[in-house]
Parts: sequence; structure tokens; C-alpha cells
Amino acid sequence: MGGFGDRTAGGRDSLPTYRTRVEKEWLDYNGHMNEAFYLLAFSRATDVLLDAIGIDAGYREEMHCSVYTVETHICYLEEVGFGAPLRVQVRLLGHDAKRLHVWSEMLREDLRTVLSTAEMVMIHVDASIPSAAPFPRETAERVEVLWAAQRHLPWPERAGRSIRPII
Amino acid sequence: MGGFGDRTAGGRDSLPTYRTRVEKEWLDYNGHMNEAFYLLAFSRATDVLLDAIGIDAGYREEMHCSVYTVETHICYLEEVGFGAPLRVQVRLLGHDAKRLHVWSEMLREDLRTVLSTAEMVMIHVDASIPSAAPFPRETAERVEVLWAAQRHLPWPERAGRSIRPII
Repeated sequence: MGGFGDRTAGGRDSLPTYRTRVEKEWLDYNGHMNEAFYLLAFSRATDVLLDAIGIDAGYREEMHCSVYTVETHICYLEEVGFGAPLRVQVRLLGHDAKRLHVWSEMLREDLRTVLSTAEMVMIHVDASIPSAAPFPRETAERVEVLWAAQRHLPWPERAGRSIRPII
Repeated sequence: MGGFGDRTAGGRDSLPTYRTRVEKEWLDYNGHMNEAFYLLAFSRATDVLLDAIGIDAGYREEMHCSVYTVETHICYLEEVGFGAPLRVQVRLLGHDAKRLHVWSEMLREDLRTVLSTAEMVMIHVDASIPSAAPFPRETAERVEVLWAAQRHLPWPERAGRSIRPII
């Protein structure tokens, strides 16, 4: 089913990473991880990326701002069963004053098999308005630092996909 | 944030529907339903659709076949908090001998507010091979019955979306 191991190898070690194992509650009736819990792991991985730019619990409490996902595209490439170690790596594909375009790959612990990919658009929201709002200056600077480190990584083959009509 | 209440009203009452309420475990640190649990509700709603074409627990056990999601596109339109009643309605956008193109809308119980949409491609898999496999004749006939009832519904505005580069 393909894989991007080779394509992101250059910057892999420096990417924000979330590690976990497939929990019993994540299995569906087929005995594999249910589609929603792939996304739970991706969601926790984006939290690691948000922490890296300073959008953490303290920020949310102090600034009354947070980041919400508005759109997500997931590709499921491989099944995975109970207890399997997972590694989710996250990078930016782009950003503007209040949005992040985020790419995540879920890998087996061997780092060779890509189990799933997720592409997301996330928006910075000021809950006191409530409305989309630009990142504050310090956060925007951290986004720029992350972007400078990641912008030269190859564009993922599955980014920008849409589902085509089946006819 | 838009909504499709009017666009699917014609066939709404006949669509496979899953009802639930937002559980405490589904909330994230913002106090809203986490992105992954929107998908859990969508996943359960597609189970209602699969039941309607005879792909249920008995089928999976007897035939050693099941249906797996391979690709999903979600739009998050509105936040939703603890205890909120949800209704997810599911329809086919297309199909072939072994694939279903599925469209789901998550609505507030008032049926006027669309909280989220999900577009999925699902593939029928024979676990004894294991490989994608055509639906057996009886299932294919049920898919055709469902398709005949739904094929004239308007194409959803958000179907076929892709995430565009942010530059």
C-alpha cells in the first residue's frame, strides 16, 4: 500500500512525534483499530505540534485562545491490532496569520510501514470573541521557526487528495 | 456556517440515521467534542447503513467479509458540547461492485444545524483471502435498492473537497 518512509527520512528525526500503543477500547468488531481512533492518535499528535509552538494548556488558559480543526482528510493504508506500537509524526505544509496546514503520518514503530496519513487545516480561535484570530506575535514567530525547519521537506504524495465520484 | 437542511430535506426521513448524545469522554480540553469523536459517531452511522444492506454481525461471521474505510474527508462546521443530542444521516453518493461512496451529515436534533459532514470510501474485503472482493449477489441487490432510493438526492456542496495549499 505504499509508504513515505523514504520521502520524509531527511527531516524525520526532528519532527514533532507522538508515541502510543493501540488500546483495547480502540478496536472495532473486526478486531482492528477503529477508524475514529486513528484520528484520536492524529489529534494527540497535533497537540504535540501545538505544544512546540507554545499553544499549550497555559496558553489556552491565559489567552482564552485555542486552535480548532476545520477540515481533515484521512487515508487508511494498513490495519493495526491491539497493543501495536504507533508513532505519529507531524509537520507543517503551510500556514498564514491564523491557519496551520498540517500533515501527519502514522507509522509502525519500525518506521517503514505507513499505516495512515492525515491532512488537516486548523484555525486559531479567540474564544472571548469568539472568532478566528491571528496568532499573537510570539506564537507567529515560533510557527516561522518550525516552518523554516520543515518547508523544504518533499510535498507528500497524498496531500491535497479528494474523493472522486464512483461511477 | 451554512447547512444542508434544505438540500436533503426531500429524502431525509428515509435515510439511515444514527442518534446519540455527546458523552463526557468525547470532550477535549476546550470543553467541546474532540474531532475524533465526531468520526466515531460517523463510523457508527455507517454501521446503520451497512446493517441496511445486510452487512451486520451475522454476515461478518458467516461470510468472513467486512467493509473497511479507506479514505475519509471531514468538515467541522460547529462546536458541540456535553450531552448535546446528535443525529447522523447517511446516504450513498455512488458505488461499484466492491466499493461504497458514502456521505454523512451530523445534525443537531433540531435538524436545522449541520455540525459536521463526512465523505468516505469503503471497500468490501474478504478476510479469508484477505483482499478486496465484490459484494455477494444478495448484498449487491440491496445496495441497488438503496441506491435507487437515494441517487436523485442533490449532490452535497462539500462532497469531493480537497485541502488547498495555504500560501
